[in-house]
Amino acid sequence: MHELISFTRGVPPTEAFPTAALAEALAASVTRDPAVVLQYGQQQGYPPLRALLAERHGVRADEILVGNGSLQLQDLVASVLVRPGDTVLTEQPSYDRAIATFRRRGARVIGIPLGDDGLDLTRFAAEVARQTPAFVYLVPDFQNPAGITTSAAHRRAIVALAEQHGFWVIEDVPYRSLRYRGTAEPQLRELGDSRVITMTSFSKLLSPGLRVGYMIAPAALITRVTREGENQYLSPVLPTQAAVAELLRQGLLDDTIAALLTLYRPRWQAMLQALDQTLPGVPHSTPDGGFFVSLTLPPDANSADLVGRARAAGLLLTDGRAFFAEPLADTTPAGERFVRLPFCAVTPEQIAEGVRRLATLL
Amino acid sequence: MHELISFTRGVPPTEAFPTAALAEALAASVTRDPAVVLQYGQQQGYPPLRALLAERHGVRADEILVGNGSLQLQDLVASVLVRPGDTVLTEQPSYDRAIATFRRRGARVIGIPLGDDGLDLTRFAAEVARQTPAFVYLVPDFQNPAGITTSAAHRRAIVALAEQHGFWVIEDVPYRSLRYRGTAEPQLRELGDSRVITMTSFSKLLSPGLRVGYMIAPAALITRVTREGENQYLSPVLPTQAAVAELLRQGLLDDTIAALLTLYRPRWQAMLQALDQTLPGVPHSTPDGGFFVSLTLPPDANSADLVGRARAAGLLLTDGRAFFAEPLADTTPAGERFVRLPFCAVTPEQIAEGVRRLATLL
Repeated sequence: MHELISFTRGVPPTEAFPTAALAEALAASVTRDPAVVLQYGQQQGYPPLRALLAERHGVRADEILVGNGSLQLQDLVASVLVRPGDTVLTEQPSYDRAIATFRRRGARVIGIPLGDDGLDLTRFAAEVARQTPAFVYLVPDFQNPAGITTSAAHRRAIVALAEQHGFWVIEDVPYRSLRYRGTAEPQLRELGDSRVITMTSFSKLLSPGLRVGYMIAPAALITRVTREGENQYLSPVLPTQAAVAELLRQGLLDDTIAALLTLYRPRWQAMLQALDQTLPGVPHSTPDGGFFVSLTLPPDANSADLVGRARAAGLLLTDGRAFFAEPLADTTPAGERFVRLPFCAVTPEQIAEGVRRLATLL
Repeated sequence: MHELISFTRGVPPTEAFPTAALAEALAASVTRDPAVVLQYGQQQGYPPLRALLAERHGVRADEILVGNGSLQLQDLVASVLVRPGDTVLTEQPSYDRAIATFRRRGARVIGIPLGDDGLDLTRFAAEVARQTPAFVYLVPDFQNPAGITTSAAHRRAIVALAEQHGFWVIEDVPYRSLRYRGTAEPQLRELGDSRVITMTSFSKLLSPGLRVGYMIAPAALITRVTREGENQYLSPVLPTQAAVAELLRQGLLDDTIAALLTLYRPRWQAMLQALDQTLPGVPHSTPDGGFFVSLTLPPDANSADLVGRARAAGLLLTDGRAFFAEPLADTTPAGERFVRLPFCAVTPEQIAEGVRRLATLL
């Protein structure tokens, strides 16, 4: 049988990892600072890494918590912020594991439809006026799963509503440095930081196996989330954090990002081109960076058991329904017609063949 | 002012860490296996480490979960096993963070008085007959905080009661390899493994900063706990697990344990000797290994604000009350008179001076 092609998870390819640099950095950081790196403590993360990240983001070190990956930080934040009866708002569609995490910690998770400029502002404003949410969760840059970037105007409006009503905004920005064209929109925290929690990780920039993620937020909230983390796991894993600090110190993070852009840009181009050529009648998102393009099949397309039929044709897809939270009362989510297409871990040839297989199914 | 002496946490001294070997192992393991060590996945832990541990313990790899430290595994197990209204039993006193963790996950935590051979079997049998607990949590070797080792007869009786009533037994054994005299009692799992969860970690043998802990349990339970971990943190940190595998493969773990015994044995002797000489009227535990000696002050000793008065005298102690769960109805816990004395991170000279300071306070 022909080669399986996987358009499933947002996983970097092995060749994207700076393996030699990481191996050296791990050894160097343990050798340099064993009394801290190998010991208990540092519940808020490895102090030199926090200092380097604080400098990079123009914040104070006590506004930064480094943990074992950003999903865990999302879990800790939800544990701290969600009270029984609370709602959490997300873009619709949104990151499937984030939706599941907020639900597990007791939130009712409601999705606000996502347009080309970000979530639907009118509906969002009405929803937060109706009930103040614990927080809204956004992936504003090259969104997972849709590939949409939230416009500056939308960002401003969201931050203003958060300050007015007193809810938190999580901006999850793991893809932000992976921009293939155009210029960056301002981060939400630059537009007003009193209600913004920034989360990101090195999973898409260095390696997922390191599980190094961090959050930036007002110091009082960082203290509460740090305590919840200490209760759950005592302190985060430190040698991997120290290795990231070592790479930052040597300027190797920016070199690695430059290499990733060179690796991923042709794949991104191949995906957009394949969709335009092979599926011209199906509108798709046109991201300026990140890992994902998405499309929503027309209502008359054959979307029944798409994942099963794709697998039989040698194409692995994720069921689109996983990305959808509870819809607003007046909206109908198109989960079964939503297709996420990650392009970073597949070659341009695999992308062209995968899209061809997809086209045969519709 | 004279040097502060700390008899607080069970922390290894920096000189106990095999720093050079760990630095080399981290680099080697990442270089050898980047496609696994640096990637997503392996929710159950790094497969070669699980295989090595399975061989060491005579179990199957699917009976092992390696996570980010054993406190986190305790948290995950409690999340999976505790239902509203459940009780969890512990030795009285017990590990303070375990008590707090089980409470946070909804359990009523009840302490069964600990004698020289382990917990009070008569009271334990009566309590499990009254209400079947979700599990009982034990530190059977050189207990934290008391320094007691549970006898073989007690172990057999506890396993038999667990099988009879259908509750789980957690045996937490991080100190088990650190035996300074005598021969080991059988592990509870050797006496019947259908109801036993073994937990341990490399924090006391290699380094706490690695946060590598693991549990052994029936495969069906491992599957449930692994899924809870995946929900919370996606997958554990892998380079540190791979480094531990590297050390095991090279036989360096056993070398490190031998070096620790050489380092800790004189400290253990110094602590027992100092107590016998300086506090002859106060009975203390006489552990055969581990990190802790403990004593319970006589009722007529001056125990009021002991921690505060000790600090003023240059001696750091942990408040004994932290180690006590809810008592059985007919018992009165002596938390304010209980003193835990960790001896591994202090020199024989510091131990002698610390015990002298303690004696002046009573």
